[in-house]
Amino acid sequence: MKRPTIADIARRAGVTKSTVSFALNDRPGVSAATRDRILAIAREMGWQPSRAARALSGGRAGVLGLVVDRPARTLGIEPFFVQLIAGIESELAARDVALLLQMVEDRGAQPATYRRWWAERRVDGVFLVDLRLEDERVGLLAELGLPAVVVGGPEGCGGLPAVWNDEAEAVRAVVEYLAALGHRRIARVTGPPELRHTAARGTAFAAAAGALGVTTVEAATDYTGEEGARATRRLLAASAPPTAIVYDNDVMALAGLAVAAEMGVPVPGRLSVVAWDDSVLCRLVHPPLTAVGLDISSYGAEVARRLLDLVAGRPVESGCHAMPVLTPRGSTGPVPSGTVDAKPV
Amino acid sequence: MKRPTIADIARRAGVTKSTVSFALNDRPGVSAATRDRILAIAREMGWQPSRAARALSGGRAGVLGLVVDRPARTLGIEPFFVQLIAGIESELAARDVALLLQMVEDRGAQPATYRRWWAERRVDGVFLVDLRLEDERVGLLAELGLPAVVVGGPEGCGGLPAVWNDEAEAVRAVVEYLAALGHRRIARVTGPPELRHTAARGTAFAAAAGALGVTTVEAATDYTGEEGARATRRLLAASAPPTAIVYDNDVMALAGLAVAAEMGVPVPGRLSVVAWDDSVLCRLVHPPLTAVGLDISSYGAEVARRLLDLVAGRPVESGCHAMPVLTPRGSTGPVPSGTVDAKPV
Repeated sequence: MKRPTIADIARRAGVTKSTVSFALNDRPGVSAATRDRILAIAREMGWQPSRAARALSGGRAGVLGLVVDRPARTLGIEPFFVQLIAGIESELAARDVALLLQMVEDRGAQPATYRRWWAERRVDGVFLVDLRLEDERVGLLAELGLPAVVVGGPEGCGGLPAVWNDEAEAVRAVVEYLAALGHRRIARVTGPPELRHTAARGTAFAAAAGALGVTTVEAATDYTGEEGARATRRLLAASAPPTAIVYDNDVMALAGLAVAAEMGVPVPGRLSVVAWDDSVLCRLVHPPLTAVGLDISSYGAEVARRLLDLVAGRPVESGCHAMPVLTPRGSTGPVPSGTVDAKPV
Repeated sequence: MKRPTIADIARRAGVTKSTVSFALNDRPGVSAATRDRILAIAREMGWQPSRAARALSGGRAGVLGLVVDRPARTLGIEPFFVQLIAGIESELAARDVALLLQMVEDRGAQPATYRRWWAERRVDGVFLVDLRLEDERVGLLAELGLPAVVVGGPEGCGGLPAVWNDEAEAVRAVVEYLAALGHRRIARVTGPPELRHTAARGTAFAAAAGALGVTTVEAATDYTGEEGARATRRLLAASAPPTAIVYDNDVMALAGLAVAAEMGVPVPGRLSVVAWDDSVLCRLVHPPLTAVGLDISSYGAEVARRLLDLVAGRPVESGCHAMPVLTPRGSTGPVPSGTVDAKPV
């Protein structure tokens, strides 16, 4: 069974190809009866207008693009991206729009990808993720005129519409919760410092801790479990170790929990652990991890709706999606007695 | 900056659109000097042939498709798929071919997706994953004539080329290893029984255990950590619990480890745990998990090369990619004394 063409339909209907073309494109020059007969045959043969033909005639590609430049091995275990993609897909599938996904190991390859996609009309728009402090992509997309929505923000998005979450508020909730449990030395194991996302959380963390008289220390990583584990070992080996650690993703929090077990540090007896990006992983370990999270899939869906609006020429505003929620579980508890009044690190 | 069109190039070069078209398509009717000048201008303006135009003129879409029907929340934490996709991407990116990804929650939607993709010339070929015991997709793809390579096999692939791994041999290695440690009651927490993959491992598991006089018990799940945890609780609560459990994925093994901790069963003191699909997750927990794995990314790359060959009309044979390798870590050990001669479950 080959893909039916206009010629196949013409043969079956006993008419010329142009008659079929007129009928399918609803143009004059063919009687109503013939048109109905041709449409019935086309339906029966499973004919569909070629996506390529529609794109060429000035229509849309019916494709939105996403370029991700995290190392594949990190992506593989971080639930965030797949949940985001699943949310995006849920909106696109209903509208018969496809997602074109490109993973690049080399960040420098991103601009070339956008240029090519747009020049070749492969995509109608793109999602911009992992916004950086210095991000050449923002200017490039504006210059190209390629419709784009930023998954993040609100800072540093230039004129591009953006959808973010109120992370500063969530960071404050975490610090206040830990302070209420008596913690006075709190560490944060962060993602890459060049991500806006990391920097914004850092500012909020310092502000919340300062307001409560809590001492903080930060250790930057590349989001991998290996670096999360290394940072945890360093923090716990310090002369005045923190009594609580907040991790920027779930995978590193898991690694931190394992390091605590390996070093004989009871959780939450001597160390409280908080994970960002609550996920199934956080509930699979023992003790289950106290975590900050949101419905990432619905975040993806909202971003997708805005990009679809943008592509369709409808007005799109930037906005906050949600405030991540803290879910306390077994990995956090009161600060161990005897350390409450210890000197800050 | 808009996408440059043939008209833009014509204006800049001071020639007609047809002259530009002749030059760009390397057809006669334009002098060598003019052709060179037009090509230089086109390059300078960043012109690229429209992908849509090439597809319409009988060329290829430059896109391969993958439909995945696992629930998004499972996918989100299972490294296997993202690693596979990363491997596929690594081959496609080098050839400027894109991957069209569709996640469907409803398995019944898969055939309609293939029909539409092919009818609309959206893809040149597809990857077929999660082969089932009764799988209508195999017949459908053959009937459509849509080029496809099965990620799995060799059984049940009809005439479709397939690339698999020698899992039976790996299952035997695991059972022999556990038997050598003295285990005589081994459980297996499996994926969905309707997957060929699950059934093939089950057959190999029974054969290997039978040959060594080992008693086995199987508990089927949907691959999620929640079901893995439930199955583990049931197994450990039995009157004669297994002394070793082999899990069909890493996420369930993690959940099993947490359940053992929750129930006060020391690992590997009283229970040995083996994970399939070795991943970073297996090394992030304490104790680190003994696991069976392979380079999934290189598996994806091999599958991609075969599908690219198939699409290009080159001959493609089915074949085995690799034998998964057992990596012993801290979660397995000798059977606890006193249970060696206990009656089988």
